[in-house]
Amino acid sequence: MAKETKKITYSEIARRSGISIATISRVMNNSSNVKDETRKAVIDAMKELGYDTSALEVLPSKNNNLILFNIPSMDNPFYSPIIQGAKAAALRNGYNMLLNADPIDEPSINDFLSLLKKTDAAGVIATNCMPRSALLKLNNTIPLVQCCECIPSLDIPFVTIDDVTAAKNAVEYLISLGRKRIAFINGPLQYKYAQDRLKGYLAALDEANFERDSSLILQLQEISYDMAVSAAFQLLNTSNRPDAFFTSSDVYAAAVINAGRKSGLSVPQDIAVVGFDNIDLSFMCTPSITTVNQPKFQLGFHSCEMLIKRICNEQLPISSMYLNTELIIRETTQKV
Amino acid sequence: MAKETKKITYSEIARRSGISIATISRVMNNSSNVKDETRKAVIDAMKELGYDTSALEVLPSKNNNLILFNIPSMDNPFYSPIIQGAKAAALRNGYNMLLNADPIDEPSINDFLSLLKKTDAAGVIATNCMPRSALLKLNNTIPLVQCCECIPSLDIPFVTIDDVTAAKNAVEYLISLGRKRIAFINGPLQYKYAQDRLKGYLAALDEANFERDSSLILQLQEISYDMAVSAAFQLLNTSNRPDAFFTSSDVYAAAVINAGRKSGLSVPQDIAVVGFDNIDLSFMCTPSITTVNQPKFQLGFHSCEMLIKRICNEQLPISSMYLNTELIIRETTQKV
Repeated sequence: MAKETKKITYSEIARRSGISIATISRVMNNSSNVKDETRKAVIDAMKELGYDTSALEVLPSKNNNLILFNIPSMDNPFYSPIIQGAKAAALRNGYNMLLNADPIDEPSINDFLSLLKKTDAAGVIATNCMPRSALLKLNNTIPLVQCCECIPSLDIPFVTIDDVTAAKNAVEYLISLGRKRIAFINGPLQYKYAQDRLKGYLAALDEANFERDSSLILQLQEISYDMAVSAAFQLLNTSNRPDAFFTSSDVYAAAVINAGRKSGLSVPQDIAVVGFDNIDLSFMCTPSITTVNQPKFQLGFHSCEMLIKRICNEQLPISSMYLNTELIIRETTQKV
Repeated sequence: MAKETKKITYSEIARRSGISIATISRVMNNSSNVKDETRKAVIDAMKELGYDTSALEVLPSKNNNLILFNIPSMDNPFYSPIIQGAKAAALRNGYNMLLNADPIDEPSINDFLSLLKKTDAAGVIATNCMPRSALLKLNNTIPLVQCCECIPSLDIPFVTIDDVTAAKNAVEYLISLGRKRIAFINGPLQYKYAQDRLKGYLAALDEANFERDSSLILQLQEISYDMAVSAAFQLLNTSNRPDAFFTSSDVYAAAVINAGRKSGLSVPQDIAVVGFDNIDLSFMCTPSITTVNQPKFQLGFHSCEMLIKRICNEQLPISSMYLNTELIIRETTQKV
């Protein structure tokens, strides 16, 4: 607050500027709920009256309206509609949103914190797979919401899906089609989503009294089309090949279509395929891919709404959300 | 610079702080090449000696190291490797880079300028199709490089490809395969790339003495898979259907494969298809798509290197770059 404020009253500024005392009070309290031109008129009037207005010229950090949305890299088109959803929520609340594509881990967390400080961000939405310590450090620094990938046991809000149930439903659907040997192509196991989809896959097998066969589980180290083509091709050319694939990503599902064709097998007759995510690729492929839809736009939208509530009220109790998935039946699955 | 600087010498500060005169000089000149703790030690010593250090407490804008990369929306996966390239250049030069996904036009340019101010960005890379006036306004405010989409006639540096030649080569290739009726699916004509690819398409037809047939040119209003499927399907079901498609995007090319199948026609036997961009979709499709590769990573990398040079030296003469494209032959094209 300006040094000489006590010497003169709001009513003097009101007379000078023609602006109401309530509004002047909001300006003095650095409320964000004041138009820029009104704020300027108040400050101009104060200057004319000889006030020191330096403390009012720059809004303090809590009135900042920048949200950073963090993704691990630009590789995965899965994030695009999530970002669009978050952006829609940011805009309707008068916030700007910028995107940062970087992994966040122990070595890089301090760089990220310094970026937050430089840009004077008000809050962060993170889709990254972060070590617990980095996540806690971030949460201690700035309002934070975890989106999609998360550690639910921490006291940090999240918006995600129930991966166990989604995967179980997908595999049950393949079993209902009469498929007997169902392979699973999964992403890196440090991700919670990958751990949970593996649980769902195994649970469906167990409930149907199918034997667990570890040779049918292809655990890849990244979401790579080429790796998946190669792994699926090898599996399709063993003596006891699978008749179906459930995959943790539509990119893997597209790879299975290719590996099948290279092996002289047709999809869906010889091999049924269910992907995950419902990214654009899944309907642009020929045949189009049966897949688990994630409500991507809503994941982003609700994460950002939740974050803004936390920015406005840091004492808000932690609340989190699991959004519903659905199986979208397309051309890569049919009954045997 | 501090007011009383002249009264005492760097050697006094050096004695007090134990820091070299060269380093003190860098701090006084607000060089970014000084560790935070060293800067703090110098400032502390100056304070103890009675200096006014206020001008040194915050780095001025020109020492900021934030670059904003702007794309029109999150819809198009084409931008991902470009962003990765720009990010690589930013990192190796000690810059941070954040992504802003927004159209920039007359109504929104002021919001964008205010975002630049808020984040104290040092420079902008823009891939947007902007009105000339908005582009000039932006360029007058901050160091700017146009990437991919650009207005070459303005005095603003750009990194792009030669779309006319790239399109001409692609259509000449289809002609060399014996294709006689070559359709063209193009993006919105307000984009320079779309205007230039149309020029290239027509130039190839003219040189081969093919008749121009406006019914073969499908001018779409956005990069939409569904729109392209519908437009291609209609054209494939006319009495005088095309035997080849050149398309301004791999998304359109994937749509032609689908429309062909819906029409009982096979790719590449009945219809040859050449896409544009070489996005991941083009090799994940079955059949995989013959396409014009844009050097996406390099487009981003060189744009960012060019921007950083301009940030460091605003008097630098404008220089721009056209990068080479190449035709990647895959499964959607064969001789008739």
